[in-house]
Amino acid sequence: MQPDEALALLKQGAAQIINESELREKLALGRPLRVKLGVDPTTSDIHLGHTIVLQKLRQFQDLGHQAILIIGDFTGMIGDPSGRSVTRPHLTHKEVIANAETYREQAFKILDPERTETVCNGDWFRPMSFEDVIRLNSRVTLQQMLQREDFKARLEEKHPIRAHEVQYPIMQGWDSVMVKADVELGGTDQLFNILIGRDFQREESMPQQVVFLLPILEGLDGSKKMSKSLGNYVGINESPSEMFGKLMSISDELMARYYELLLRRVAPEDMHPLEAKKQLAFEIVQTYHSANAAKRTLDEWNMRFSKRDLKNADLPAFSPAEEDLSAVTVVSDVYRKVFQSEKSHSEVSRLIKQGSVEIDGTKIRDPKAKITLHPGQILRLDRKRAVRIG
Amino acid sequence: MQPDEALALLKQGAAQIINESELREKLALGRPLRVKLGVDPTTSDIHLGHTIVLQKLRQFQDLGHQAILIIGDFTGMIGDPSGRSVTRPHLTHKEVIANAETYREQAFKILDPERTETVCNGDWFRPMSFEDVIRLNSRVTLQQMLQREDFKARLEEKHPIRAHEVQYPIMQGWDSVMVKADVELGGTDQLFNILIGRDFQREESMPQQVVFLLPILEGLDGSKKMSKSLGNYVGINESPSEMFGKLMSISDELMARYYELLLRRVAPEDMHPLEAKKQLAFEIVQTYHSANAAKRTLDEWNMRFSKRDLKNADLPAFSPAEEDLSAVTVVSDVYRKVFQSEKSHSEVSRLIKQGSVEIDGTKIRDPKAKITLHPGQILRLDRKRAVRIG
Repeated sequence: MQPDEALALLKQGAAQIINESELREKLALGRPLRVKLGVDPTTSDIHLGHTIVLQKLRQFQDLGHQAILIIGDFTGMIGDPSGRSVTRPHLTHKEVIANAETYREQAFKILDPERTETVCNGDWFRPMSFEDVIRLNSRVTLQQMLQREDFKARLEEKHPIRAHEVQYPIMQGWDSVMVKADVELGGTDQLFNILIGRDFQREESMPQQVVFLLPILEGLDGSKKMSKSLGNYVGINESPSEMFGKLMSISDELMARYYELLLRRVAPEDMHPLEAKKQLAFEIVQTYHSANAAKRTLDEWNMRFSKRDLKNADLPAFSPAEEDLSAVTVVSDVYRKVFQSEKSHSEVSRLIKQGSVEIDGTKIRDPKAKITLHPGQILRLDRKRAVRIG
Repeated sequence: MQPDEALALLKQGAAQIINESELREKLALGRPLRVKLGVDPTTSDIHLGHTIVLQKLRQFQDLGHQAILIIGDFTGMIGDPSGRSVTRPHLTHKEVIANAETYREQAFKILDPERTETVCNGDWFRPMSFEDVIRLNSRVTLQQMLQREDFKARLEEKHPIRAHEVQYPIMQGWDSVMVKADVELGGTDQLFNILIGRDFQREESMPQQVVFLLPILEGLDGSKKMSKSLGNYVGINESPSEMFGKLMSISDELMARYYELLLRRVAPEDMHPLEAKKQLAFEIVQTYHSANAAKRTLDEWNMRFSKRDLKNADLPAFSPAEEDLSAVTVVSDVYRKVFQSEKSHSEVSRLIKQGSVEIDGTKIRDPKAKITLHPGQILRLDRKRAVRIG
């Protein structure tokens, strides 16, 4: 493939490239480029947020390039402060290594293992002495560090920045020297860290890596970055039905964003949003499980949540404790007893007012209405949950 | 000696003690206190500025306490950023060790070797791994560091603070833990660093060291801190006549300050300032050389610089290049050729106007006056320098 063609392909979905002309020159070298991705196994789960960068790395591989997956067994003990408003908790080396193993396994759901070199940055950081650290530190200034948006915000809000957090970007930069990276991939919050790598490479008289940034995926809440610690994520190791269910719960607006970032196309405009969402969920389950699993999950979903089929569906049973309870009490009980989900009365009231709750297909709109349920009736709580009265 | 008596003695000349009641308690313990002084052998010369702290340490020794002299063979490679407006140059370990050896020798002109324990902080910092560094760093915040006046000023003036400079106070603090210091001595610019030591000791569940700060001596220029790099210092290893000459060159105002800080008494008010200055210089030469050397130097000085005796003094010779030159030209030439001292014409003009320059005891007041010198005449440039025309 010609460099210009390859460039056009790679550019798709990129948020920022520093800079395109350098990338074009490198693509014209006629050798496999070393494309670096650093991963901090601070958690064992790869989620859809990570897949955007991993899919781009796979695209590089499909064009004949070499992926360098840096397992941050050392940096992981600190945790990247990028975009963080508080210091991350320390992890032990053992925790980090355990996470790293399952991480690699999951990454190969996307990456081509044949074109992936995996290295641990502890290999070069662990033997470093205090003197080496000082020498490395003397290359960067505090002023550079304090330009970072995340550090700036923490200074303004008087949230402490611990002195060791300054080491993170320095280490990430040194990684690029050690693996002789031609390109480094990352989310847009990685700009600063990846630029440090370019600086270090220049000082070492090496060709500088291209900074290749990808957009950051919002979590299921539609506002914050997808992350395990925020609980707003879809893990690629989750079961098809968990994955499907979580994706069906997102807003229509977020669905459009997920189409763009995860399927790399616009959401179909001639389709009902509910159907478009099923399509999104189907394709993602297909990618991380299989076409069969996706088909099965979709059928199950359709059966459970289309009104006319609920009668035949295999629903959990529920027997109300007494008659004549208010709607909000009954629904809260079902959430808690059947689905182990604690919801406040005000939350349940909102669901009821929004028309989410139905008895045999009839919406209940008044949270205070006294209701009496009869065996065999179907009580639907929301799109995903319903019970049969026993 | 009773604790109160000892406290009263030690307090003399102190700039700040954090805090006195703690120091009193420690003095009442009835055991020798471990009094820490960290020295960075970034230069091999101990100068009068250092002696203020060393003399205080000697006073602790004379009261039965133990001096812990920490040779910063490790920290010396970074250099204390305290009070500095620019990053210090790196020193190699070899340079630092060479400096340390002569440093110790000089320090024992003041300290009692019997009550001095000397340790090198490289002994605990050299074996530290990157991981240890990270753990130590995680105990302090960047915000703490940025409270420092010197760092603040550098941020404001956009002078770079290199990331490794942050390590300095962390290391100095850790030193206090390692040597179990009861008291740490330092100049007033050491407040921040010494407080970090207190924090670390508390975290290690150790008794906290008392911060004992001493005033900082101005250099010969009377404005900046005395320091080798500024060239405004009197080294305690300098020859009696160098020492004497340098001290005779200070302003009357600075003389009062030197009396206070170096001789720990007020300058005599009933004495002519010139005589008071001779007394100061005499006593300092006596301290760092001997009473005999001081006597000899004073006599020499008196002979050279009292007008009537210049004829007999052993003066360097000078032959003017041509006749009829302006006074300013001749005097500049003498400074440059005889004393290797480059002075601007405006500087020399000022000296002449001030009446510093004399030919055979007659002041020349006009810098532009054409002068013709004859062999055997004495041309006096200033209090310290004169030549015999050859």
